[in-house]
Amino acid sequence: MSTPLRVTIWNEFRHETKNPAVQAIYPDGIHHTISQALQTQAAAAGSAIALRTATLDEPNHGLSEEILADTDVLFWWGHCAHGAVADSTVDLVQRHVLEGMGLVVLHSGHFSKIFRRLLGTNCSLKWREKAEKERLWVIEPSHPICQGLGEYIELPHTEMYGERFDIPTPDELLFISWFAGGEVFRSGCTWRRGHGKIFYFRPGHETYPIYHNGEIQRVLYNAAHWARPSMRKKDVCPNSPELEPLPKPPASFGSAGIVQSAKDIQ
Amino acid sequence: MSTPLRVTIWNEFRHETKNPAVQAIYPDGIHHTISQALQTQAAAAGSAIALRTATLDEPNHGLSEEILADTDVLFWWGHCAHGAVADSTVDLVQRHVLEGMGLVVLHSGHFSKIFRRLLGTNCSLKWREKAEKERLWVIEPSHPICQGLGEYIELPHTEMYGERFDIPTPDELLFISWFAGGEVFRSGCTWRRGHGKIFYFRPGHETYPIYHNGEIQRVLYNAAHWARPSMRKKDVCPNSPELEPLPKPPASFGSAGIVQSAKDIQ
Amino acid sequence: MSTPLRVTIWNEFRHETKNPAVQAIYPDGIHHTISQALQTQAAAAGSAIALRTATLDEPNHGLSEEILADTDVLFWWGHCAHGAVADSTVDLVQRHVLEGMGLVVLHSGHFSKIFRRLLGTNCSLKWREKAEKERLWVIEPSHPICQGLGEYIELPHTEMYGERFDIPTPDELLFISWFAGGEVFRSGCTWRRGHGKIFYFRPGHETYPIYHNGEIQRVLYNAAHWARPSMRKKDVCPNSPELEPLPKPPASFGSAGIVQSAKDIQ
Amino acid sequence: MSTPLRVTIWNEFRHETKNPAVQAIYPDGIHHTISQALQTQAAAAGSAIALRTATLDEPNHGLSEEILADTDVLFWWGHCAHGAVADSTVDLVQRHVLEGMGLVVLHSGHFSKIFRRLLGTNCSLKWREKAEKERLWVIEPSHPICQGLGEYIELPHTEMYGERFDIPTPDELLFISWFAGGEVFRSGCTWRRGHGKIFYFRPGHETYPIYHNGEIQRVLYNAAHWARPSMRKKDVCPNSPELEPLPKPPASFGSAGIVQSAKDIQ
Repeated sequence: MSTPLRVTIWNEFRHETKNPAVQAIYPDGIHHTISQALQTQAAAAGSAIALRTATLDEPNHGLSEEILADTDVLFWWGHCAHGAVADSTVDLVQRHVLEGMGLVVLHSGHFSKIFRRLLGTNCSLKWREKAEKERLWVIEPSHPICQGLGEYIELPHTEMYGERFDIPTPDELLFISWFAGGEVFRSGCTWRRGHGKIFYFRPGHETYPIYHNGEIQRVLYNAAHWARPSMRKKDVCPNSPELEPLPKPPASFGSAGIVQSAKDIQ
Repeated sequence: MSTPLRVTIWNEFRHETKNPAVQAIYPDGIHHTISQALQTQAAAAGSAIALRTATLDEPNHGLSEEILADTDVLFWWGHCAHGAVADSTVDLVQRHVLEGMGLVVLHSGHFSKIFRRLLGTNCSLKWREKAEKERLWVIEPSHPICQGLGEYIELPHTEMYGERFDIPTPDELLFISWFAGGEVFRSGCTWRRGHGKIFYFRPGHETYPIYHNGEIQRVLYNAAHWARPSMRKKDVCPNSPELEPLPKPPASFGSAGIVQSAKDIQ
Repeated sequence: MSTPLRVTIWNEFRHETKNPAVQAIYPDGIHHTISQALQTQAAAAGSAIALRTATLDEPNHGLSEEILADTDVLFWWGHCAHGAVADSTVDLVQRHVLEGMGLVVLHSGHFSKIFRRLLGTNCSLKWREKAEKERLWVIEPSHPICQGLGEYIELPHTEMYGERFDIPTPDELLFISWFAGGEVFRSGCTWRRGHGKIFYFRPGHETYPIYHNGEIQRVLYNAAHWARPSMRKKDVCPNSPELEPLPKPPASFGSAGIVQSAKDIQ
Repeated sequence: MSTPLRVTIWNEFRHETKNPAVQAIYPDGIHHTISQALQTQAAAAGSAIALRTATLDEPNHGLSEEILADTDVLFWWGHCAHGAVADSTVDLVQRHVLEGMGLVVLHSGHFSKIFRRLLGTNCSLKWREKAEKERLWVIEPSHPICQGLGEYIELPHTEMYGERFDIPTPDELLFISWFAGGEVFRSGCTWRRGHGKIFYFRPGHETYPIYHNGEIQRVLYNAAHWARPSMRKKDVCPNSPELEPLPKPPASFGSAGIVQSAKDIQ
């Protein structure tokens, strides 16, 4: 077996501790359900995976320099407590993504600090909770994230997210959702930031059993593999020596190569 | 004459007050030189322009809600005091860009808080001060920002910026620089963020008379027109009523359309 | 008034001469209806426009070097006779687009020779004629093509086009359609090819009165202005003299600067 | 070992049979040198590869439906005889790329029929043969094609290619070249067309020993792996039944769901 894919699943884990309807669906938390799903998918594929979870109310939100350095791909689920995530944790995660760590942002994570930080936009959208039908059309069936799917994924009861979704144009648009109530949404989008790969995937919500759906689980598994980095690389901004011999600048430039007088104004 | 294009030029304005070599080139500040250049270009084109400047050491850095609401395009030059820009000002500028205001970031502004905030990356690069030759090749001669130029712009003495420039893939790549010392750089890049258009343009530096160059001035003028917004739009994230009649969800969903029990787990 | 925008509307014009149901909607041809719509929109905006039409069964399909050289933006509607368009005409139109002429491809024009030639893909899709409702969501409200629209355009009865639409990733995705029968479609897409701007717009069909809709007409008018070229530029592939002095290559390279022997194999 | 990567290397193979200087560098043809290089790289990586070559003057240019169906990635080198490639072969290769086959186009292949067919543009550029130095800067070090490289690849003696390169904006820009004579070039570019991945890589030429360079060989090997398809998929354009029940259209629409009279003109 090859080197295991190291995945850390971060979950806000607040709804599950307070709301019996949510507990009924995710008794051990959304992170636990996703972790089990990835384990099952990896076992079926005969592929090694090393799973870890982290939640908001653990010390440092369950994340650290050591854990992220040991993480290939981080999943992120949050909803009602985005503001409770410390800015220092957002800084830490951003740095690791820019250095190469993959990031999979789920559903209401569109409003998380880390997603907005990496994209630079508001990431706002339309929404509605009416248990309506969603059909996710596969736009790029040959993309690694879409392997094993048919023409679409159908979810009988979901929260609606509608356009305009305030995001930078995705590098790749993999899914567009149709909703019974009349809206559409760019539900699967990829971006590169620094050396890291980011995938946003719309389906989910604490009050719908979306993460129990086998096709959704397949997308999450595919995304984890797709986002795996080929390398990690620290940021630098070096003063670089010349690679080709440079002529001596005119006398009005000093020895440091910068202007010493106004004589050179064109 | 049509409605004037409203431009605000923001400048750090620190080098010019302290360094005689810089004063020799930009006695009234880089912002003043750019303002005059845009005025001259507009007059030559018979086009109306309304110019304003703002600097770091004015109260609130010379910027406010009222000024930005009255600004079509903001220019940004900073170098040695990026950290002195208040986060509240960065928040304000980001919001206006996302609502539609254009932003032109110049040279060492690559490391400004506002540029990194909007792009989400480190925006680091290689650099060298050796007064070397730069040749900016025009990659998209039919783009509005490149009108009036030849195949390239040549600058006899510049600071070098080299790849890898840590930015998200630009929507449009307009200029690539060749440097005598052996490097290349993506010197003219556009991105859309929210409803605002962003242009980064590499040439500049306080110790070279770059903003006195007529072709550089032409690019700045073109960029101001290109970045002008067609509209301003506030951010919203609305709960939206359905546009098509929705069927009643199963009984296990409550009246709010959310799951009440685990029966619906797929 | 400024220089008029010169638009040529090309129409296959076969359905309208044979099918009474189509004649009832477009008695003088789809090209005539679009031409009138652009005229009306231009008059309302106080903007000058010069309109011309051309059809398949005219000599040379109504197009020539002279006409295209005098055209800023070409509209293209075809459906049942794509194969009847001469390859020499496709060559001619392609060359003018690459030199800067704008191109607006409508509805079933997705299968035209010129659209497939410029995009390089099959441009296939799903389709259904059931007079169903379409809602075109505006994804980029601040784009020039979307000016004057609300959040969406609603068409009560249309032919359906569904994903996957086999196109290269658009530079800009402006509209996504929702269809009552359950599909979605990237209905408004832009690409640059050479110096020309291309806009594909889905709505239309000979048996639905789509081009009589005021919002659709507004999009067509906006698109004509957006696609207007800033310049026209002939293609060249020049042997270029060096801009910097080059050292003499080793003796194993001849005077033409090419290898004369195997000594330089690394 | 996993399923071998199946690579077919197509070469024009005309220069090598006529020009002694070229024979000195590529005695068995450029295709042979590239094939050996890929074999060596695969052996070093412990990865299975199945190599095949094809040349212009073989029957059907050495290509067929069967061979392409059995090819994961096709390499293409051509220079002086692009026009001699049969259009039927171009049709065949295009179809396989759109169905998923990878394509790596080398150097003067920028002017091949297949590259221009897939991109839709002229693909012209500047050029000069003066045996000058080229430095290929790695723009995306974390991309799979760039693995194993340093900050740049340096070639002491090459033909120059300069901007503007008339191509659609690449999906990914991986290399930008610096030339001693003063030009720059987008030397490594990727695009998706249909289900196929395309990589253009500038270095090469029959009169320079570029394909003997180990770093260039590494890029070719990386590109073969990157372009490997996850699936093959035939093109379809189906009439699709509705997925959601549709209301009966008004009486003015016939049973086929199309307008029967002008009553519905909006």
